[in-house]
Order: sequence, then C-alpha cells, then structure tokens
Amino acid sequence: MDKELIQKIVQFRNDRDWAKFHNPKDLAISLSIEAGELLECFQWSSSEESLELRREKIAEELADVLIYGCLLAEASGLDIEEIIQAKLDLNAAKYPVEKAFGRKDKYDRL
Amino acid sequence: MDKELIQKIVQFRNDRDWAKFHNPKDLAISLSIEAGELLECFQWSSSEESLELRREKIAEELADVLIYGCLLAEASGLDIEEIIQAKLDLNAAKYPVEKAFGRKDKYDRL
Amino acid sequence: MDKELIQKIVQFRNDRDWAKFHNPKDLAISLSIEAGELLECFQWSSSEESLELRREKIAEELADVLIYGCLLAEASGLDIEEIIQAKLDLNAAKYPVEKAFGRKDKYDRL
Amino acid sequence: MDKELIQKIVQFRNDRDWAKFHNPKDLAISLSIEAGELLECFQWSSSEESLELRREKIAEELADVLIYGCLLAEASGLDIEEIIQAKLDLNAAKYPVEKAFGRKDKYDRL
Repeated sequence: MDKELIQKIVQFRNDRDWAKFHNPKDLAISLSIEAGELLECFQWSSSEESLELRREKIAEELADVLIYGCLLAEASGLDIEEIIQAKLDLNAAKYPVEKAFGRKDKYDRL
Repeated sequence: MDKELIQKIVQFRNDRDWAKFHNPKDLAISLSIEAGELLECFQWSSSEESLELRREKIAEELADVLIYGCLLAEASGLDIEEIIQAKLDLNAAKYPVEKAFGRKDKYDRL
Repeated sequence: MDKELIQKIVQFRNDRDWAKFHNPKDLAISLSIEAGELLECFQWSSSEESLELRREKIAEELADVLIYGCLLAEASGLDIEEIIQAKLDLNAAKYPVEKAFGRKDKYDRL
Repeated sequence: MDKELIQKIVQFRNDRDWAKFHNPKDLAISLSIEAGELLECFQWSSSEESLELRREKIAEELADVLIYGCLLAEASGLDIEEIIQAKLDLNAAKYPVEKAFGRKDKYDRL
C-alpha cells in the first residue's frame, strides 16, 4: 500500500466521522473478525476449490483485513513499511536460510 | 506496502523454499492465527494501556498479519492496491457519507 | 459440561477475584484468542500429523475455548444446554436431512 | 454439556453424513470462524450495549462455538470433562490464589 492509498483509507474514515470509534482495541477486534470472514472462504474446501468458487469474496475479505490493518497502524502511530521491514529482519534471524530451508518447523525446533 | 517491500516478502519465502507450504488456505489460517496474537495485545486492557505496555508486540503482530496478507494475495494472483481500491468503492456505496456520518450501524441498518 | 464442572469454572474465577475483568466483551475477545491458539496446532499440517504431534496442546487449547465459553454464558445469563439445543433445532430447519445429506453447501445454496 | 447433548450433536452430524467433512483441522477452522462471528456481536459496542441489542445472536454464535468444540473433541478422541478439569488443574498451578488474586497479569509476570 503506497502512501496515497493509505491516505484514501484515512480520508474515507474522516469523511464519515468514524475516528471516534476507531480506537486500536476495537480496530484489532475488527481485524480479527475480518480474518475469520476471510478464513470462511476456505471452509470445507481445498485452496483450489475455494479460489475457483469464491475468488471475489476472498479479494473483498482480504481487502477488509488490510484496510483495518492500515487504520490500526495509523491509530497507533506505526509506519507500515517500517514494522514489516523490522519483522522481516527479526524473522531472518529466527529462520536463517541454512537451518530453515524447506522446513516448516517453528524456530525453537530448528 | 510498495512493490519493493512485497518483493522482499516473496523473496524471503523463496530463499527458504517455503512456497510449497504457502497455499492460500494455510495462509488464511496463518493470518487468522496472527490476528489472534495481535488481539491478545489488547486482552483485559484499554487501548491506551495496551499501547503503553505492549507497543513493540503490537507492531510485530500487525506486521505478521500484513506479511501473511501479502503472501495470500501473491498466492491467489490478487493485486493489493486493486483489491483495496475496489473495497473502498464498494464501502462508499454501502456507507454514503450523508447516511453514515457519525454512525456505527452496519449498512443494512442505515 | 455438567452443572458441577461449570460451577468449578466459576469458583476458580471467584477465588481469584477475576469477575471484574470478565465482562462479556473481553470474554468474547479471549475466546477468539484461544480459538487462534487451537488453530495454531493445525498450522502447516494435516489433521493426522497435528493429532500425532500436538495432541496434548490441542486438548489444552480446546479446554481454554470451552472454559471461556462457559464464563461468557455465565456472564450473559445464558444456559449452555438451552442455547445448544435451540441452535440444533435452528440448524435442523436450515439443513433438513433430505436436502443436506452428504452435502457441505451453506443452507442458502441447498 | 451432558453426555446426552453431546450425543445429539454427533447424531445431527451422522444423520446428514457430515463426518467425512468434519476432520479436526477443518473443525478447528470452523470453531475459529464462529468465534469471529461471536466477537462481531460486540463490535464497536460495550458489553452492556451488545447484550441489550444482540442477545439472541450472542446465544446462537456461542452455541455454534460450543457445538464445533464438541465435534472437535469427538473427532480427536478427547473427553470434554477430562480436558477441562486437567486445564483447571494446570491453571491453578500457574495462577495460585495468593499471587493471582485481583490481578490480570499473565502467569509469567506474577
């Protein structure tokens, strides 16, 4: 999401005077709700079947998750690019290529 | 997330030969798991208290959600900027400013 | 869960003076968090592999979900046996055997 | 849930030939989805407001969570009464009354 799109998300909220509802805790709750709706697209089905039957819904629910993610970052004073880069650096240390290659084990089992 | 950061996320996965685990269904599962870990930062606390005590963890868990969101988009052939813009357009129709201003009701109750 | 076990769960809470934290909203948040931890037992694995490797953790996380479910029912004045029976009756109407037999479709697609 | 109610839940599933869909992983997914729908009852509202406006829906979604919890226990060969008692014993050790009384801290911070 570039800065322009994040700005559109924030503007959408401000146009509707919704910032008063969008405190971080209620935004984290909303993100979890949407994550469940996204997961529902894959209920009882394989990945292939889900993508074939419910591709549009997957796109909508994933967008909802990302929009709430943006709003939560904004309400918490976090920069999305910074926190993702920081987490990738942390993950690189927890999952060095030579140990983690081709393995799905959690880092404490490498 | 600009194209460069998305590329880093995908490269991180490829360096570790993890694409074989990252089918859309298991990615949606992982996104839901991380959404729960993000929500845990706010358990039993107000937004203010949570931000004060667990700001770094909030950043890490939110980054995890966004990273899995990126990987799910990539595995499903979805463009993040496009799906967010499409959802904002859909939301604008469901929540016109004149009806939704200052109201938290769901669209079918406006 | 028979009435005696529900009583033990409530007593555990009262012994620790935790009722003041256990309002329905924060209990629903906690139940969602535990549902994510339960789901994590199945991350990247099949059902069989998960049961083989993480059976004890599955038991613990499922217990956590059910304990929070109990506390939420108690805090909301709901009777667990009643609400389950009511939902089974509702589901029987939405998924009549002659239409739903062997099918995983949602009720609005039967 | 007494043994009779659990039996009704299992019978409902067998009457519709649904056991083939109800493997533990997909049941854990379903439980998480319902936990999100339960949490949605409390979105943007306080506990009081949510109970007042959406009491029936809270009962239905909580019932859904508990029904899937039952089915997951059955599919995994777990006894609900046993696993809850075991978790209460574990929690009693992690949160002794003298340390945990009136405190919401996680056990590793007591």
